Amino acid sequence: MKRSAKERIGLSGKDGPPKALVENLGEFVDREVLLEGWLYNSRSSGKIAFLLLRDGSGTVQCVTAKADVGEEIFAVARQATQESSIRITGMVKKDDRAPGGYEIMVSNVEIVQIAEEYPITPKSHGTSFLMDHRHLWLRSARPHAILRIRSTVIHGLRDFFADRGFTNIDAPIFTPAACEGTSTLFETDYFDSKAYLTQSGQLYMEAAALAFGRVYSFGPTFRAEKSKTRRHLTEFWMLEPEMAWADLDDAMALAESMIVAVIDRVLDTHMQDLETLERDLSKLERIQKPFPRITYDEALAILEKKGKTIEWGEDFGGEDETVLAEEFDRPVFIHRWPKEAKAFYMDPDPEDKRLVLGVDMLAPEGYGEIIGGGQRTASLEYLDSQIEAHGLPAEAFEWYRDLRKYGSVPHAGFGIGLERFVGWICGTHHVREAIPFPRTMNRLYP
Amino acid sequence: MKRSAKERIGLSGKDGPPKALVENLGEFVDREVLLEGWLYNSRSSGKIAFLLLRDGSGTVQCVTAKADVGEEIFAVARQATQESSIRITGMVKKDDRAPGGYEIMVSNVEIVQIAEEYPITPKSHGTSFLMDHRHLWLRSARPHAILRIRSTVIHGLRDFFADRGFTNIDAPIFTPAACEGTSTLFETDYFDSKAYLTQSGQLYMEAAALAFGRVYSFGPTFRAEKSKTRRHLTEFWMLEPEMAWADLDDAMALAESMIVAVIDRVLDTHMQDLETLERDLSKLERIQKPFPRITYDEALAILEKKGKTIEWGEDFGGEDETVLAEEFDRPVFIHRWPKEAKAFYMDPDPEDKRLVLGVDMLAPEGYGEIIGGGQRTASLEYLDSQIEAHGLPAEAFEWYRDLRKYGSVPHAGFGIGLERFVGWICGTHHVREAIPFPRTMNRLYP
Repeated sequence: MKRSAKERIGLSGKDGPPKALVENLGEFVDREVLLEGWLYNSRSSGKIAFLLLRDGSGTVQCVTAKADVGEEIFAVARQATQESSIRITGMVKKDDRAPGGYEIMVSNVEIVQIAEEYPITPKSHGTSFLMDHRHLWLRSARPHAILRIRSTVIHGLRDFFADRGFTNIDAPIFTPAACEGTSTLFETDYFDSKAYLTQSGQLYMEAAALAFGRVYSFGPTFRAEKSKTRRHLTEFWMLEPEMAWADLDDAMALAESMIVAVIDRVLDTHMQDLETLERDLSKLERIQKPFPRITYDEALAILEKKGKTIEWGEDFGGEDETVLAEEFDRPVFIHRWPKEAKAFYMDPDPEDKRLVLGVDMLAPEGYGEIIGGGQRTASLEYLDSQIEAHGLPAEAFEWYRDLRKYGSVPHAGFGIGLERFVGWICGTHHVREAIPFPRTMNRLYP
Repeated sequence: MKRSAKERIGLSGKDGPPKALVENLGEFVDREVLLEGWLYNSRSSGKIAFLLLRDGSGTVQCVTAKADVGEEIFAVARQATQESSIRITGMVKKDDRAPGGYEIMVSNVEIVQIAEEYPITPKSHGTSFLMDHRHLWLRSARPHAILRIRSTVIHGLRDFFADRGFTNIDAPIFTPAACEGTSTLFETDYFDSKAYLTQSGQLYMEAAALAFGRVYSFGPTFRAEKSKTRRHLTEFWMLEPEMAWADLDDAMALAESMIVAVIDRVLDTHMQDLETLERDLSKLERIQKPFPRITYDEALAILEKKGKTIEWGEDFGGEDETVLAEEFDRPVFIHRWPKEAKAFYMDPDPEDKRLVLGVDMLAPEGYGEIIGGGQRTASLEYLDSQIEAHGLPAEAFEWYRDLRKYGSVPHAGFGIGLERFVGWICGTHHVREAIPFPRTMNRLYP
C-alpha cells in the first residue's frame, strides 16, 4: 500500500500510471490509470468479469478479461466481494453506452481488503434498517446523490450571499433564558446555570445587520418537538440572512433570487445525480422569477374555494400548504399575516394594523414551507407593546431592545430550512433523507 | 422612508441618486450618491461638520458645509448623536489623505433615528463591559475587522475544499452514548433518553470518506471544560476534512496548502482590516510552504535544550507549545506521537510500535495548537485492541467498527479550530474575539 504522497493526494503515481477519479475519466481517454475504490457490484463468466467500481466521485464498469490479465489476476478479480476495497489499473475507453460514458479495460486488480458479507444488498430494505446502517447506506446511489446535491446547495447558498456583500456571522448555539416557553427547547446544564439550544439565530442577526449591513448565519438549529411528520427533524440546518435598510419586498426579492440561483447551479452540475433520483427535471426547470406573491387573505380565499375553511387569524397546517401550493407551478410567497399568527418582532402593516409584514414561502409539489421571514419592527415603543402582549419576560430582551435605541433602521430577513430545500430539489419524501445523519424523535444513532 | 425595492436592495434609487456602499465608493467618483448608515463619530465648527459615517462595509468622512447645505440641514447634521441612523446624500470625491481614499461632499442629511446616549464611547472599556454589550460592540472598528476576516476565512476554507473535490457532509450535533467519559460533554434530555453535544465529527467523517472519497464537516462543537484560558471556548467551530486512500503525509500536505491558501486570500482582500488591527503583516506574509515537520522526539529535544523537561509520553502544555513555536517563523507540524498521548483510533507507526501516526500543527507567535489529526487505523483487529486498552464501551463503536469490516482503506484527516485560526490571523489575544457571540464558562449573554 506504500505510494508516494503526491500520488496519494490524487495527482499522479511516482512509478505507476496516474491516479484518476471516476468523475475525471474524460481527461484520461486511451490512457492507463489507477483507480482506488470499492466494488459496488460485479458479474462474471469463466472468461470475463465486469467489476462496477465506485470511488466516491462516481461509478465505472471495469472489464476484466482473463485473456488479458492472466489466470492469477482474474482469480483475484472474482474473489472481491461487495464493498471490498480494491485498486484497479486499466485503460480508459470512451463508451457512449456506459452510464458515465467511459469503461476501463483492466490490466491489474489488487484487493486491499475483502469485505465481510455486506448488510445492504440490492434487495429492498426497510427505512429503519437502512437508517440503522446510515454509516454504510451513504455509499448507495440514492443517498450519495442526495448528499452530493446537498453539498452543492450549501456552497451555492454561501456563494450567493458572499457575492452580494453579506458577511457570514455565526449565531450562538447556546442561548440564555428561554423566550417563548421551554416546551420545544433542548436544555443543558451550563456550569451553574441552564442553557438552551438555539431555535433561530434571527435576533442575533438583527444585531449583526446593524453592524455589518448585510449578514447571514448558517448553522444547526434545534426543536424538541414531539413531531413525527415527514417534514420534521430535531436537528436541522438553517440559513438566516438579515439586511439593514430593507423591507418586506426586499426580503422576498432576495429569497426569490436565492432559490433560482441555487436551483440553476444544481441543474448545471448535478444532472447525473438528478437522473439517479429520477427527479422530474421539468418541475425544477420552471422555477424562474417572478414567484407569485399573494396575501394571507388571498390564500384564505383559495383554500375556501377548495373547500378548506380556515378561521381568519389561524396559521395553515401542512395539508393546507399542500393545497395552496398546488395552485402554482413555482414557489409562492404568502405575505401580510394576522398579527396573532406571527412572532412578536414583526413590523405592523401601515395599511392595516391587524396585519404584520411577515412572509412564508411554500415550495411546490407539497414540500411545504421552506422560508419564513419578514420585516422586523424598528420601533422600540411597538416592540415593547408586543413583548408585553405576548407575555414575554422583558429582561430577556434587554439587549434586543438596545437595537431600537441606538440607530434603529428598517430591516428585514428570513430563514430557510436547508433540509426542506434539499428535499424539494431532490424529490425526497421525508426530510430525513436530506441530512447525512438525521436526528428525529426516535433516532439518535448512528 | 418609503423607497423602491430596487433602491433598497442596494442598486439604484428610483428618483434620487444611486445608493452606494462605502466599500464601493470608487465606482462613483464625482457623482452624487445616497449612503445609509450610522454616525460613528463627528466634530464640527460653526461652519462645517465632519460626519464619520459607517454603513457596515466601511467608514467614510462626510463633509457638511453650512454654506452648501443651508442652515436647516446643517442643524440636522449637528443634531445627530453617536450611532444615530442617518441617510446622507453627497458627491464622492477622491482624496488620498482620507482613510478609505474617498470623502463625501454632503448635500443632504436625513436623520432616521436619533440614538440614545451610546454606552460604548471612545474611552477605554473593560472586556467584560464590552462583552456584555457584544450586540453593540460588533459595530466598533476592531470586532468589525476581525469578524469580516472570519467570514472570509470561512468562505476561503470552503472554497479550498470544494475546489479539491471534497463533499461537505455535516456531522450530527446530537450524539448517543458518550465515548470517553462525560466530564467534558454537554448533556441534554432527548425524549426518553440522553444525548450529548458533539466534540468532533471525525468518526462520522470516516464513514463519509468511505462513501464520498473526500469529505469535510464544518460546524459548531462543544466542550464543557472548566477552562478559563485565552484559548478556550465552550462552543467553537471546527472544520474536519477526511480523505480515503490517504496517509499522514497527505494530511500534512493538505493542511499546509489550506493554511497558505486562506492566509493568501485574507492578505489579498483584507488589507484595510489588518491595518485596523495593527497586525504585523510580515508575520503573515512569511507563511509559505513548506512548513517544518518534526517528530515528537525532536520536539522533546528542543524543549529540553530550552530548559523544559517533559517526560516521554506526555502531551505538551500551552506554554510548551509557545516555546516550541518560537523556534520557527511559520507553523510547525509535530508528528509521530507516543501512543498513550493520542486517541484510540490512531494508526501505529510501522517503524516504531510505541508511536502513532498522529500530528499536531502549532501556529507561530504563541497561538498554540490549531490543527490535530493523523492517519486512522484501517485494521479491525488493532482497533478492537485499542478500544479495549482505552477501556471504551465496545457497543458504542459498533457502527464505527463496520468501517473496518466493509472495504477498509488507509485514510487520514484532521480538525482545525476556526477561532484559533482566525485569532492567529488577526493577532487577537483571546479566542473569544474571533467568534461573534462567544460562549465561555462565565459567559452566555447576550
